[in-house]
Amino acid sequence: MTHQAPVLDTILAHIDATRAAAHGRLFEFLRIPSISAQPDHAADCRRAADWAAEHLRGSGFSARIAETGGHPVVIAEHQGTGAGPHLLYYGHYDVQPPEPLELWTSPAFEPTVVDGQHGPKIVARGAVDDKGQVSMWLEAFRAWHDVAGGVPTRITVLLEGEEEVGTAHLLPFLRANTEALQADAAVISDTGMWDIDTPALTTRLRGIVYTEIKLRAASRDLHSGIYGGSALNPINALTRILGDLHDADGRVQLDGFYEGVTALSDAEAKQWDALGFDELGCLASIGLSVPVGERGVPGLQRIWARPTADINGIWGGYAGAGPKTVIASEAGAKVSFRLVPGQDPEQVFAAFERFVAARAPADAHVSVTKFSADPAIEVSLDNPLVRAAQVALAEEYGRPPVSIGCGGSIPVVEALHSILGLDSLLMGFGLEDDQVHSPNEKFEVRCLDHGTRAHARLLGKLAA
Amino acid sequence: MTHQAPVLDTILAHIDATRAAAHGRLFEFLRIPSISAQPDHAADCRRAADWAAEHLRGSGFSARIAETGGHPVVIAEHQGTGAGPHLLYYGHYDVQPPEPLELWTSPAFEPTVVDGQHGPKIVARGAVDDKGQVSMWLEAFRAWHDVAGGVPTRITVLLEGEEEVGTAHLLPFLRANTEALQADAAVISDTGMWDIDTPALTTRLRGIVYTEIKLRAASRDLHSGIYGGSALNPINALTRILGDLHDADGRVQLDGFYEGVTALSDAEAKQWDALGFDELGCLASIGLSVPVGERGVPGLQRIWARPTADINGIWGGYAGAGPKTVIASEAGAKVSFRLVPGQDPEQVFAAFERFVAARAPADAHVSVTKFSADPAIEVSLDNPLVRAAQVALAEEYGRPPVSIGCGGSIPVVEALHSILGLDSLLMGFGLEDDQVHSPNEKFEVRCLDHGTRAHARLLGKLAA
Repeated sequence: MTHQAPVLDTILAHIDATRAAAHGRLFEFLRIPSISAQPDHAADCRRAADWAAEHLRGSGFSARIAETGGHPVVIAEHQGTGAGPHLLYYGHYDVQPPEPLELWTSPAFEPTVVDGQHGPKIVARGAVDDKGQVSMWLEAFRAWHDVAGGVPTRITVLLEGEEEVGTAHLLPFLRANTEALQADAAVISDTGMWDIDTPALTTRLRGIVYTEIKLRAASRDLHSGIYGGSALNPINALTRILGDLHDADGRVQLDGFYEGVTALSDAEAKQWDALGFDELGCLASIGLSVPVGERGVPGLQRIWARPTADINGIWGGYAGAGPKTVIASEAGAKVSFRLVPGQDPEQVFAAFERFVAARAPADAHVSVTKFSADPAIEVSLDNPLVRAAQVALAEEYGRPPVSIGCGGSIPVVEALHSILGLDSLLMGFGLEDDQVHSPNEKFEVRCLDHGTRAHARLLGKLAA
Repeated sequence: MTHQAPVLDTILAHIDATRAAAHGRLFEFLRIPSISAQPDHAADCRRAADWAAEHLRGSGFSARIAETGGHPVVIAEHQGTGAGPHLLYYGHYDVQPPEPLELWTSPAFEPTVVDGQHGPKIVARGAVDDKGQVSMWLEAFRAWHDVAGGVPTRITVLLEGEEEVGTAHLLPFLRANTEALQADAAVISDTGMWDIDTPALTTRLRGIVYTEIKLRAASRDLHSGIYGGSALNPINALTRILGDLHDADGRVQLDGFYEGVTALSDAEAKQWDALGFDELGCLASIGLSVPVGERGVPGLQRIWARPTADINGIWGGYAGAGPKTVIASEAGAKVSFRLVPGQDPEQVFAAFERFVAARAPADAHVSVTKFSADPAIEVSLDNPLVRAAQVALAEEYGRPPVSIGCGGSIPVVEALHSILGLDSLLMGFGLEDDQVHSPNEKFEVRCLDHGTRAHARLLGKLAA
């Protein structure tokens, strides 16, 4: 590996020297309104795929557009100039709809550089999610190509166009192409840093079991005067069941819910404590002042490392203005559980079914539907790719990256794991205030430039 | 009173002899589509009022149409030929919309006589609610007028046109006309019998406190992955509060809720037991099999004589198809309490406010709105008018009437009591299966004819 150091220095210098051209290429990418949710932008989605494929070809990749039944994916390959691990780079070229347009300070698809607290930032839909982050590794590939004749290890690229609409066509595509997509590990840049000076690897993603419960009682709506006190009220019953989800200490009351959940390692707990998470400040920004969840558990652990239960929606009976004296025939709710390593999603779902059944009154016809059941993901820090990323980030930033969690799930990470057997390195450069999915989405130029260099460094670490 | 007996016999014979003409008049009334809810039927409502006023004039009443700001009321007066109590007869000439029209077996406003299990029945919108029941006392007045020169006691008639749309204009009208509407008691025929052979007086009406609770948490909807375990979920909180409304024995858990509630008298309990209420059969007809409510309390008492709590509607978060990982910013519910004699509606509302406040988590901005707070009504059986009605019904049917309850409230009964100071005699002749408010509403001819005779008898009992 020692012979790479001078090459890497040249590559980094090349990245710095050609950053204006790289920004220009990103701007081209951002100008394509590849809004996957809007059918009249289907051609733009394909155009974005073509654009990325052409970019990759310019870096020595063979690239093709593959059909999925929805928006196409870009598949690209480079054998690499060395014998390091075979990496699958995943990203997405599609973006969220820009609406409401009137809240944008500049056109959503005309990238505009604006000065902010951290210096210049690029304002555009997709700036950080995910075109800007994809462009970091595209440019790292290009620099390796320009300076060293190609990326130093074997790489497959999988760039999809339906991440913002649920990745529906990607999963069958992965199942149908397990051969073509074989690799040793995946690399994804679609997450964030801890703050602008503190790089981060995301090593924990909570899983999720998402359910819908419906409770049917009488065969028709009833008059609450005539039947109140005799006929089952499904809303009374539903609130009684769901009101029991947590105990007084905020713990979820499903049988066996915490079985297998392990405490954070001392090292990880200490590292998270040192981050100085300002939970009260975070809550204050949304009008709240008191954390909920398990009593006595630190804030970051409650969000990243402890399982939760939330009712995401509830309905039944009369919700219009004024009074209506009705006993509804049916009520329902969406209930989801965030999971952490050690929990089996199917067992959690079964426990919820039992929880409901045990509390359902006679005459309640209850159905519990499972929409998803994905386990939590934990990336072992004891992994050569992760260690390489840690060194790359430490060298780029002059401080080691922190290992952080993500309270939400990233479905593709689970899919890459379960379908292709790949662990993912989640090395992202977004910031908390990047306005992802909102008007005036932005990406700090500082994050973009460091991210490109960090990706180039990572390849250097893997070269063998 | 003894001299009345021969007159009454003549009157009853006259009613029997002229029943075809009386039915014909009712059919005229039923043909007027006086649908109060539909603005393009405003003229029909006025036509129905005029028709009734004319009917009353034909029986020696002075009658006028009084404006209310909405559909008019008919006010009629007869000084009476004797010195009995001054009675206010209340009824309504408006009807529910007939929709859905396709479910009617004959036109809703073309009364049609159809043979059924109890003999002929009149099928039409308003047949029993309330034109048919109003026509019983209109025809009783007419028979007294034709045979004896006038009703035997002083009578005021108040016939309104907005009962089916909430009686909104009637209440200010009552307040503005307390002088003109003075009387000793009110008589209303808008309720039912126990069964076709068992006459009934409704002596208990449950009251109601109807509320809306809203619970606001964060200032915007949140991602349940990012905030789950830290930010207050208002649906979690709402179900936790409302799930606590009842204890395991079905008793409402508001502080002091049952204070002042008295047990049924032994006589009333025995009489209700003797009715042999088939609660399971009633529940089976709506797809249920197990009564709810207070454990160990007989069915009729649970519906008529015990207070209840029902959630009439609930909402919050995502209720569409599939999953959405959101923590809502707000959730709400409609919650109503049915009250029995001895309960103070304002105290029940205050207890609910305290119940909610005691269970609301920090950060929950809770509002509890009161839509109505009406006490239960209990008609004392120890009342000359009630005793007269009991005798009249016993003589007409050959068996004494039962005293029954009504789980719902009848707002006008409360208004007549609180605004005019009048107790109401609720002597009705509807049956459970009359399809009130539904397609193919009907009134049994047997009920109609007995009802007319019973009203004529009641006047005979009051003559002094």
